[in-house]
Amino acid sequence: MQTIIVIGIGAGDPDQVTVQAVKALNRVDVFFVLDKGEVKQELVDLREEILRRHCGDRPFRLVRGRDPERDRSAGAYAEAVHDWRRRRADVCGELIERELGPGQTGAFLVWGDPSLYDSTLPILEDVLARTGITFQIEVIPGISSVSALAARHRTGLNRVGRPVQITTGRRLAEGRPGDVDDLVVMLDAHNTFAELDDPDLEIFWGAYLGMPDEILISGPVRQVAEQIVAARSEARARKGWIMDTYLLRRRTET
Amino acid sequence: MQTIIVIGIGAGDPDQVTVQAVKALNRVDVFFVLDKGEVKQELVDLREEILRRHCGDRPFRLVRGRDPERDRSAGAYAEAVHDWRRRRADVCGELIERELGPGQTGAFLVWGDPSLYDSTLPILEDVLARTGITFQIEVIPGISSVSALAARHRTGLNRVGRPVQITTGRRLAEGRPGDVDDLVVMLDAHNTFAELDDPDLEIFWGAYLGMPDEILISGPVRQVAEQIVAARSEARARKGWIMDTYLLRRRTET
Repeated sequence: MQTIIVIGIGAGDPDQVTVQAVKALNRVDVFFVLDKGEVKQELVDLREEILRRHCGDRPFRLVRGRDPERDRSAGAYAEAVHDWRRRRADVCGELIERELGPGQTGAFLVWGDPSLYDSTLPILEDVLARTGITFQIEVIPGISSVSALAARHRTGLNRVGRPVQITTGRRLAEGRPGDVDDLVVMLDAHNTFAELDDPDLEIFWGAYLGMPDEILISGPVRQVAEQIVAARSEARARKGWIMDTYLLRRRTET
Repeated sequence: MQTIIVIGIGAGDPDQVTVQAVKALNRVDVFFVLDKGEVKQELVDLREEILRRHCGDRPFRLVRGRDPERDRSAGAYAEAVHDWRRRRADVCGELIERELGPGQTGAFLVWGDPSLYDSTLPILEDVLARTGITFQIEVIPGISSVSALAARHRTGLNRVGRPVQITTGRRLAEGRPGDVDDLVVMLDAHNTFAELDDPDLEIFWGAYLGMPDEILISGPVRQVAEQIVAARSEARARKGWIMDTYLLRRRTET
């Protein structure tokens, strides 16, 4: 039986992998990488730094596939993503079938934690469901950018006995959920926080968490929104890409 | 300046600490432990196993304080917790003042991730706010039981472009939030899931995640609720304590 390990490698600090992940990395024969062939060379380098640092001198193979383009012009977001995932599954299935020998172990490295806004697991399920290829899946959890954000701001995500919701910028643009006062926002390309005109709202924002270029800004949204928008735009222009996330906290009585 | 590091040590598997956490453990002069003097000896042993495994032969001090009792009969949950935290802060402040020398580094080890349903950070803030003691705080994120749960069930927490909410059993008992289909429930001592009579609801439940006694059960709530209640009650009686969490997922069109 072949095995595919999906390994969470943390939010960007190469030391933010677990001992469990390091042991998993050292069981892998073939690392699969889907490459967008784009500007995020820094992330590619960082992933290789993680392998160098934690796999030592052990031989392993690194196999690259071409990540299909997502149709960003399509109106229906979920459908466009499902279509893209299906095409990624086709690429992954081919790579696994061609490159992984009998009894061997392959791996996909995932930034953050494989359980949060990542498509690797559903893609592998899709490969299993639609092709004749069989393998077992193992998942190694990782430090999510959400945990990394909270740690760097030295704050908790929830308050006593209260919930926290993790959502996307796209959904936040449709309105804030009514029943939560602590809201983590991921994948927000449009500075949606800056539209929120609520004097009781605080933001804890972070970009490139755990990396040398890390930026942290926090304060009342009304006071710091402009500063975040400017920092975001400057960093994105300079580096060509950005990974950021934030916690919105509504001040309440208790 | 003295430093207190709050270190997330993962959900129970001693290898679920990060390399960053191992490095932090090795900078610590004094580990502070609040002890309930109760049946969870296994957790105390596990914590010491983590120190043994990752601190090697390095000398360090382990200082124990007596964890104050929480008033579980009080009606107002949040107030009872705030009162309890205040008394814990008093104990922690005394320990830090008495045991930590100038320029030394102390640490609190936190199960899971310090950002989720943990009181260490607010307690340290309270010590800083109410006493004359000064120190800087550093936080090392950990693998939360939420990430560990999802990994063991090999599933994601959210679906494409949709939110996930993390809440408590107490709040779930007051009603399911209307706008989320993926709900993680922590601190549920009363099997609240078993009250939910919804044919579209699936549960992914896990106890003692990453430990030798780990139990995983998943399926439609209607089909597996009784099995989980029985497993929970048996394990709790046998071991004297339980740490468990679950994901509730409502089946939807997409």
